[in-house]
Amino acid sequence: MNKTRIGIIGYGNLGKGVEAAIKQNPDLEMAGVFTRRDPATVKIQTEGGKVYAMSELALHQDDIDVCIICGGSAKDLPQQTPELAKMFHVVDSFDTHAKIPEHFANVNASAKETGHVGIIAIGWDPGMFSLNRLYGHVILPEGHDYTFWGRGVSQGHSDAIRRIPGVQDARQYTVPIEAAVESVRNGENPELTTRQKHLRECYVVAKEGADLKQIEHDIVTMPYYFADYDTTVTFITQEELDKNHQGIPHGGFVLRSGVTGQGHQHIIEYRLKLDSNPEFTSSVLVAYARAAKRLADEGISGCKTIFDIPPAYLSPQTGEELRAQLL
Amino acid sequence: MNKTRIGIIGYGNLGKGVEAAIKQNPDLEMAGVFTRRDPATVKIQTEGGKVYAMSELALHQDDIDVCIICGGSAKDLPQQTPELAKMFHVVDSFDTHAKIPEHFANVNASAKETGHVGIIAIGWDPGMFSLNRLYGHVILPEGHDYTFWGRGVSQGHSDAIRRIPGVQDARQYTVPIEAAVESVRNGENPELTTRQKHLRECYVVAKEGADLKQIEHDIVTMPYYFADYDTTVTFITQEELDKNHQGIPHGGFVLRSGVTGQGHQHIIEYRLKLDSNPEFTSSVLVAYARAAKRLADEGISGCKTIFDIPPAYLSPQTGEELRAQLL
Repeated sequence: MNKTRIGIIGYGNLGKGVEAAIKQNPDLEMAGVFTRRDPATVKIQTEGGKVYAMSELALHQDDIDVCIICGGSAKDLPQQTPELAKMFHVVDSFDTHAKIPEHFANVNASAKETGHVGIIAIGWDPGMFSLNRLYGHVILPEGHDYTFWGRGVSQGHSDAIRRIPGVQDARQYTVPIEAAVESVRNGENPELTTRQKHLRECYVVAKEGADLKQIEHDIVTMPYYFADYDTTVTFITQEELDKNHQGIPHGGFVLRSGVTGQGHQHIIEYRLKLDSNPEFTSSVLVAYARAAKRLADEGISGCKTIFDIPPAYLSPQTGEELRAQLL
Repeated sequence: MNKTRIGIIGYGNLGKGVEAAIKQNPDLEMAGVFTRRDPATVKIQTEGGKVYAMSELALHQDDIDVCIICGGSAKDLPQQTPELAKMFHVVDSFDTHAKIPEHFANVNASAKETGHVGIIAIGWDPGMFSLNRLYGHVILPEGHDYTFWGRGVSQGHSDAIRRIPGVQDARQYTVPIEAAVESVRNGENPELTTRQKHLRECYVVAKEGADLKQIEHDIVTMPYYFADYDTTVTFITQEELDKNHQGIPHGGFVLRSGVTGQGHQHIIEYRLKLDSNPEFTSSVLVAYARAAKRLADEGISGCKTIFDIPPAYLSPQTGEELRAQLL
């Protein structure tokens, strides 16, 4: 069997996760890591694995079947994905929901023009959560949707706290409010405000001599990030933060509550509980890289999302095996 | 917009559910109910809706886009689906897991030969549960699978009790054992025996003068159905059964527990809580009937399962709308 060769573009948490996920899939292999740093300074986990300068990527078109682009959605992916889709089949985890239509159009133009496949917005939200929103909608068209996130680390909120004067380090957890989740599960179809769905737990290391009252005030009143939530602020030492808050757990719930016939109620719940947000995202990316190769082999091109991919294309097993073992 | 016209083949609980589901989907309409009974005796819920004799079905090829075959998996579907796939695009809910490969081959032969699409084994298990087993496998290849059913009515087990001498009526509930589900949720990857996963609750109406001890003994020792489970038997009156046990609720859980990287654990859970097993199944069937029409319009033919259908094909919305609203 020819293995599908994956190029890893960028080597942060997501790139490392992709490298680890490839090892769990015997039909895939790593073609190399491509980095904007000096390759000599980048130590990877794969014995004998190659690290190249990003500038060399174009020279590796014959060695790579699919590139997984592991950059950030704010600055990297809007440039990289359309650009690389001119040379490679690509998969990314673009997660700025509001800008997906624009990103789709850009990737689609490059990919169509050059006969490549680009699968965007892969991960868990957007990604598996989106998929479950879609399945919920089509099965129960008369119903209500709920998405809850957490308990998990929000990097964006942690960064926002770190920018407050007097703050040395911080970690913010988004926590779904259990009573709200239960109400949805019970089919009560509650109307929930932002404050009723999630609360925000902040663990903050203050600089020496900082005004703790002021920091707390600055956090809980911060517009958009915290003002609309019940927010708790706990001051801890750097030591405690390093010891107890280094993980990047996340997860959440997608629920669809709907009725059929004469008022029969149904609840569909999809739940993720993840020890490592980036590693789980990477594992989803890798499955969709397999699908990208499959689509490309069929001569399909253009931009796709998780909604467009037949589930069987994610698996190394044949249709016959899947029907016998998993159906 | 041209509505997709659905023929309902058979008018039991599932057929009635399909009729109700069509009303919730403005892009679909019922072309007619086809029955083996005398059509004059079959009263349906749709004002002005047509009921025809099954024998007339072949005359309606121009009026029907997709037939949803609402018969049983034991006797009806193995004959009907391959037969009708010669004349129509068809969807069924064939649920005898072990015979799916054979059924697939039969439907595929008819459908391929005549240029039709046949989507089989649609519902929730097989169906949405299968889909979640597949997604779980591909995302977390190093992991464990768990499927729990219930709390819900098992028709097969209820029927088995009714065949015991002295039993007038009965209802059996399959109940997942909460401690087992919790253990899986906690990532303990338990090895579970049949007895540790589910228990069976039986509500039995005895005939006058029947030997209750004997009935209970006959139930709890019945091989395959009950002997391997902790089974409770509660004798109630027919009145109580009619009042408290007329619903057909069901549901269950599919869990995938797996690891990535350096031992990071992840739990994916998919849960259904259904007031009406047949109405939910019907709602899934109707969404896949929409997909069958979409595939047929693209010139695709042959037998498909839930694994083969791109999620977007289930929705009446355009790709653009889905990306903007649900991704």
